[in-house]
Amino acid sequence: MQRLIDKIVEMQNPTVAGLDPKLDYVPSFIKEKCFEKYGKNLEGAAQALLEFNKALIDALCDIVPAVKPQAAYYEMYGWQGVKALAETIAYAKSKGMYVITDGQRNDIGTTMEAYAAAHLSTTEIEGSEVEAFGADALTVNGYLGSDGINPLLKICEEKDKSIFVLVKTSNKSSGELQDKITDGKTVYETMGNMCENWGKDLTGKSGYSAVGAVVGATYPEMLGELREKLPHTFFLVPGYGAQGGGANDVKYAFDKNGIGAVINSSRGIMCAWKKEDGATENDFAEATRREAIRMRDDIRAVVGEMKA
Amino acid sequence: MQRLIDKIVEMQNPTVAGLDPKLDYVPSFIKEKCFEKYGKNLEGAAQALLEFNKALIDALCDIVPAVKPQAAYYEMYGWQGVKALAETIAYAKSKGMYVITDGQRNDIGTTMEAYAAAHLSTTEIEGSEVEAFGADALTVNGYLGSDGINPLLKICEEKDKSIFVLVKTSNKSSGELQDKITDGKTVYETMGNMCENWGKDLTGKSGYSAVGAVVGATYPEMLGELREKLPHTFFLVPGYGAQGGGANDVKYAFDKNGIGAVINSSRGIMCAWKKEDGATENDFAEATRREAIRMRDDIRAVVGEMKA
Repeated sequence: MQRLIDKIVEMQNPTVAGLDPKLDYVPSFIKEKCFEKYGKNLEGAAQALLEFNKALIDALCDIVPAVKPQAAYYEMYGWQGVKALAETIAYAKSKGMYVITDGQRNDIGTTMEAYAAAHLSTTEIEGSEVEAFGADALTVNGYLGSDGINPLLKICEEKDKSIFVLVKTSNKSSGELQDKITDGKTVYETMGNMCENWGKDLTGKSGYSAVGAVVGATYPEMLGELREKLPHTFFLVPGYGAQGGGANDVKYAFDKNGIGAVINSSRGIMCAWKKEDGATENDFAEATRREAIRMRDDIRAVVGEMKA
Repeated sequence: MQRLIDKIVEMQNPTVAGLDPKLDYVPSFIKEKCFEKYGKNLEGAAQALLEFNKALIDALCDIVPAVKPQAAYYEMYGWQGVKALAETIAYAKSKGMYVITDGQRNDIGTTMEAYAAAHLSTTEIEGSEVEAFGADALTVNGYLGSDGINPLLKICEEKDKSIFVLVKTSNKSSGELQDKITDGKTVYETMGNMCENWGKDLTGKSGYSAVGAVVGATYPEMLGELREKLPHTFFLVPGYGAQGGGANDVKYAFDKNGIGAVINSSRGIMCAWKKEDGATENDFAEATRREAIRMRDDIRAVVGEMKA
């Protein structure tokens, strides 16, 4: 997690660009080229997503510290889409970006070890270690308890990787389970405490551990409550922009040093060319860059200077 | 879910073969052939898994109603492994088997729609609908509440597909969250009630809905408790065999008609050739078939005749 914090401080930008590409978001000149070359099929679609992603990464890599590809949007284009995910991760890393694969993976024992190998570590093939997807961080779901998280902790330590555990999600019905009270605490606070515990031996110099939490921007009061109760848990905050949260909603996620959270925007960043007055699809990468700068400045204005 | 129940009744076999392939499980003559042809890399490994899976499917398809590939074991071999997953699903379906993709996917809104399209439905590409993975059922995690499940229900109805929601998992630490008491009920019972509610308009002729639950065999008393409290929720039960559960542990998952559950075995089935006295790797498919028959008869002896 310290690597992410250092990048945030270096760029004075606590945001992450969500790469959740749908074909609808991709400018038609990219789609047409890829469909012509590969066919109107899963491969053509996946190539269009990849080319779109690469252009966005080029437009963002010197001002935004991290990208967060959402696995679902690649899986919907089949294994060809998953290949585009692997290539997107590799490209973003080659440009110096921190990559968070948003997959909310969860399982136990050897199966969770397989997910950990897949997304954060390496797979052994006849004595050699091969990287499958190789992200820097992975979102996970902690419903299964420590057996689902322990296989990741060793890899976080050995390979300097991180995880983000779902604690309080940004959707309306998140309270159906997460807000229920158990032992005098909400389920989300119980999960947050589990994060503090899982990360207790993996704390970096800024005081945050390799075990972060996903906490939605749509519940600002809970962000503040959790920031106070979970002092070693770094937050990944979805819900800014398209889901309704603004800078004033996310400010509670930060500590007195201006760190403690990274704020995600996906559609707002990717579809900037569709939303900005006067922008055209030819201008998509520049529109994305302008929106990323606007978002950075919007959040920086309420957070102040970030110190590692 | 009714399609699965009908297959179980037709074969008088309430079991599912977990396809969680690791290279270690694959006979060396298959590995050597694939490494020679494709290289000692992710592609060679993925081709070995696929060839192994196809031979297992051939050995099982007339006696076992369903297979359950676990996504983690394919993802660890990169997009090449995910391609082997897609091809395994297609092959199992071509042999008439019901396919449950075990991915424990979870997210909200459009992202969950993307997972649903990926694994159970189709993806639109320029006006045509293309199948990405096309399983019959998907395991999911309900921590995010209804916003994470609703996108699946429409597809279950329209395309005659099913989901299995994690309720009580088979691991030791599952109780850290799942056994906590909230509103006088455990978290797992709360989740079970949510399953009953999500499935209430999707019930088939045998009385079970398209929304099933994952309930581990390692907690027999909870299996019995949930069977009674969740009369419309079909159970997927892991934990038989390698994880320690036996026929007497799983019998509580069944109703008076001998249905209500499908019992999974993964390593027990896949590694039968390693465990059976006198079996060699050349005999792996026959050993798998013998173990599948033994498991079927073991469970049938306590469950009795199954009636749809």
